[in-house]
Amino acid sequence: MDVQQQDNEDLVKVAELVKEMKFAMLTTEEMDGTLRSRPMSTMQMDSEGHLWFFTAMSSPKVAEAEQHRQVNLSYARTDKQDYLSISGKVEVVHDKQKMQELWTPWIKPWFRDGLDDPDLVLLKVTITEAEYWDAPGSAMVRLYGL
Amino acid sequence: MDVQQQDNEDLVKVAELVKEMKFAMLTTEEMDGTLRSRPMSTMQMDSEGHLWFFTAMSSPKVAEAEQHRQVNLSYARTDKQDYLSISGKVEVVHDKQKMQELWTPWIKPWFRDGLDDPDLVLLKVTITEAEYWDAPGSAMVRLYGL
Ligand SMILES: Cc1cc2nc3c(=O)[nH]c(=O)nc-3n(C[C@H](O)[C@H](O)[C@H](O)COP(=O)(O)O)c2cc1C
Repeated sequence: MDVQQQDNEDLVKVAELVKEMKFAMLTTEEMDGTLRSRPMSTMQMDSEGHLWFFTAMSSPKVAEAEQHRQVNLSYARTDKQDYLSISGKVEVVHDKQKMQELWTPWIKPWFRDGLDDPDLVLLKVTITEAEYWDAPGSAMVRLYGL
Repeated sequence: MDVQQQDNEDLVKVAELVKEMKFAMLTTEEMDGTLRSRPMSTMQMDSEGHLWFFTAMSSPKVAEAEQHRQVNLSYARTDKQDYLSISGKVEVVHDKQKMQELWTPWIKPWFRDGLDDPDLVLLKVTITEAEYWDAPGSAMVRLYGL
């Protein structure tokens, strides 16, 4: 995973935590208001603070994200009791060059046909709020809020 | 934590996973559609499959839950790459007797005044859908769906 140096100082700690935790539970909203989550592999946090993921265009989360663009990413390291909540807006991005930049063999289990898969797309999350907790009983720390 | 024997067979595996993972990220929806999450300690999964949590009446999550009752609970065990998503409906419950039943000293860090705290309430989540992933690259398993 590629976590770049952040232009925005408020995102430095978020970047550190994302790097350490790597897998997020991405929560989206269904048509009827149901909230669903699923594990996702973070591919990159770019210098402007966007979080990038690979996914399948045909998967339900894409339709859900397109009708309710606000999503949550929760990161956890359960052995250390570190938790991070990121609220953000998601976009579906079709960009072959960006896909090439982000591709790594370790996500093959989810995308067997690799970059040739016509169903492969990118999700780009722009952070609007972030909060973290880093010890049992600790108060929440607001890291970032727009 | 108290995980009871489940009346509904479909919830047996969910109960096993909840017992193992214990802490959930609870995602709620704000007025403007923003999705926020925060770590919560599961106090009980009762025999009817309800999940019980302590919280403070005055906390934003209670107001959020009251205006958008659908929530998500995501459980993770990051060292084993086990993930569980529970979609459900939440109720705020004021019940002194149930609070007494559920109280344990290990949640004191979050509720210093214990059962005497007038701000203390219970959240009760009724499961509508559950899914889990129990190995990297594994397909999702639908456990329960109403
Ligand atoms: C550890 C782990 C990492 C995963 N990473 C991704 C990922 O980066 N992209 C993806 O689309 N699915 C990933 N999955 C699979 C998803 O969790 C999910 O099952 C799949 O994307 C279908 O989701 P949906 O039906 O909610 O759209 C991962 C699963 C696990 C267990």
